[in-house]
Amino acid sequence: MKVGILGYGNLGRGVECAVKQNEDMELTAVFTRRDPSKVQILTPGAKVYSVEDAVSMKDEIDVLIICGGSATDLPKQTPEYAKYFNVIDSFDTHAKIPEHFDAVDAAAKASNHVAVISVGWDPGMFSLNRLYANAILSKGKDYTFWGKGVSQGHSDAIRRVEGVLDAKQYTIPVEEALDAVRAGRNPELTTREKHTRECFVVAEEGADLARIEKEIKEMPNYFSDYDTTVHFISQEELNEKHGAIPHGGFVIRSGNTGWEEENTHIIEYSLKLDSNPEFTSCVLVAYARAAYRLSQEGQSGCKTVFDIAPAYLCQMSGEELRKHML
Amino acid sequence: MKVGILGYGNLGRGVECAVKQNEDMELTAVFTRRDPSKVQILTPGAKVYSVEDAVSMKDEIDVLIICGGSATDLPKQTPEYAKYFNVIDSFDTHAKIPEHFDAVDAAAKASNHVAVISVGWDPGMFSLNRLYANAILSKGKDYTFWGKGVSQGHSDAIRRVEGVLDAKQYTIPVEEALDAVRAGRNPELTTREKHTRECFVVAEEGADLARIEKEIKEMPNYFSDYDTTVHFISQEELNEKHGAIPHGGFVIRSGNTGWEEENTHIIEYSLKLDSNPEFTSCVLVAYARAAYRLSQEGQSGCKTVFDIAPAYLCQMSGEELRKHML
Repeated sequence: MKVGILGYGNLGRGVECAVKQNEDMELTAVFTRRDPSKVQILTPGAKVYSVEDAVSMKDEIDVLIICGGSATDLPKQTPEYAKYFNVIDSFDTHAKIPEHFDAVDAAAKASNHVAVISVGWDPGMFSLNRLYANAILSKGKDYTFWGKGVSQGHSDAIRRVEGVLDAKQYTIPVEEALDAVRAGRNPELTTREKHTRECFVVAEEGADLARIEKEIKEMPNYFSDYDTTVHFISQEELNEKHGAIPHGGFVIRSGNTGWEEENTHIIEYSLKLDSNPEFTSCVLVAYARAAYRLSQEGQSGCKTVFDIAPAYLCQMSGEELRKHML
Repeated sequence: MKVGILGYGNLGRGVECAVKQNEDMELTAVFTRRDPSKVQILTPGAKVYSVEDAVSMKDEIDVLIICGGSATDLPKQTPEYAKYFNVIDSFDTHAKIPEHFDAVDAAAKASNHVAVISVGWDPGMFSLNRLYANAILSKGKDYTFWGKGVSQGHSDAIRRVEGVLDAKQYTIPVEEALDAVRAGRNPELTTREKHTRECFVVAEEGADLARIEKEIKEMPNYFSDYDTTVHFISQEELNEKHGAIPHGGFVIRSGNTGWEEENTHIIEYSLKLDSNPEFTSCVLVAYARAAYRLSQEGQSGCKTVFDIAPAYLCQMSGEELRKHML
């Protein structure tokens, strides 16, 4: 199975690494908006091209993994490239998924390709676990906690504060809230009770640190609803101790069964990830395999993780899966 | 959707309770090997019949949920009833799944029905989580821990020891082993290092307790490979404190990504269940919905949880799922 990568940032590089780990795949090409001669990739034999050249390679690529951003790239790229390729993306603006789905579905159906959108861990594996848990425990309550991990959006927001040179923000689930959920107590939790935010900030020399801290903590949407701590550190310390992109989280459903709903059950799914983009990439690559197989079966249109039977994700045959995994 | 239950033990009763919680289903009939006039069910309007009458009701039932045991009932019942109904079972003898699959598949295909086998939590939800985690993290190591929970087989084995009147056995995962796995240390664990076994035993008056304890602890296959503790208690205490059937467990995959596999990721799925049979029943009922839908689409043959796209399990439409769950 021949894979193309469109966009070579953290996610694109993660996909490249994931393809290396799957013997049934090979990386054919990386397409970039930068000058291809200046983009150094890791895979021997694979080539770097300008995005302009992507369409001309449509017959040499089985699945194109689109590694753009959700804000402006994917809403354009995924429907556009679905005209020429089987495509997959990690579109993660939850509120705009229905709209994105419709646009991609129309393009993929018209061109007889398979597209899979919103693949990753949230949306993605977390969504799947919400669905399975809801299907099983029809009377119950859902909880999603994120972290401990780096929020790129919150880190960016801090960097926009005057006097800030660099910053990294960690989202941290509140242990007491997790414990209450796991104990089946079905708590009603406010935003503040679920997560705290910890910020590591590099300030300009002579900047008013108290003012910066106040501005961060009072920032609406991003920080004002949370208990936030701010640490001022040097650029060296930030680079050294906060260079990684860990993340993770918990999806928990607490439900009741029995004639009088007298029994409680807890279903919990959790991720602890050293590298958010590399894990997302691995999910993308598994669903790229599924997209390729579905396309070979003659299917077309847009799918999500909800629409794809798990067996399509694995290299093993149905027989092997039943023997070794069931 | 009209549901029939074949076999009215703990599992059958659990299915009855689960059907009550799902508005798109109704329980039509319970089929029993006992005298139907002596079987009291909970659902107003549903009827109890002899198993002998099941086939004559094939047109009144959309899915028959077969609630027999894996040792001797299901290998006969599931292929037999797949001739007349869409069927679903919780066959859990892992080593015999391929054989069971083939028998059920032949019957279901010949009669144009859908059958789903080995539905529950292990096999079932645990299998699904093993598959998803393996598909995502292709380089890694799997761990499954069971408990804390009641093992019926081990409890039965104790009851066969001379001088034992009653017993309940709990399988307990070893916390240190779980912690080592969660820390990504990929330990090689022996049977003894993964689980301990705790037994609550009611002995005959005057029985040789030391001999009973020794016989239990040295019992091959069941106990000799484990650290086992034995507590002698009264029948009253057993009934009062150990009457429930809790269970649960953990499926963990630890894997590495990155060009040099330098990053570690932990995927963990866990269940904490007040009632093992009631939870299994809820999984059966969700997959019964899927079986019915697949059958309405014209599909036939035997499936497992690996072959069924998650969306089939839910009452919500694809559109609603994307909007609310993704």
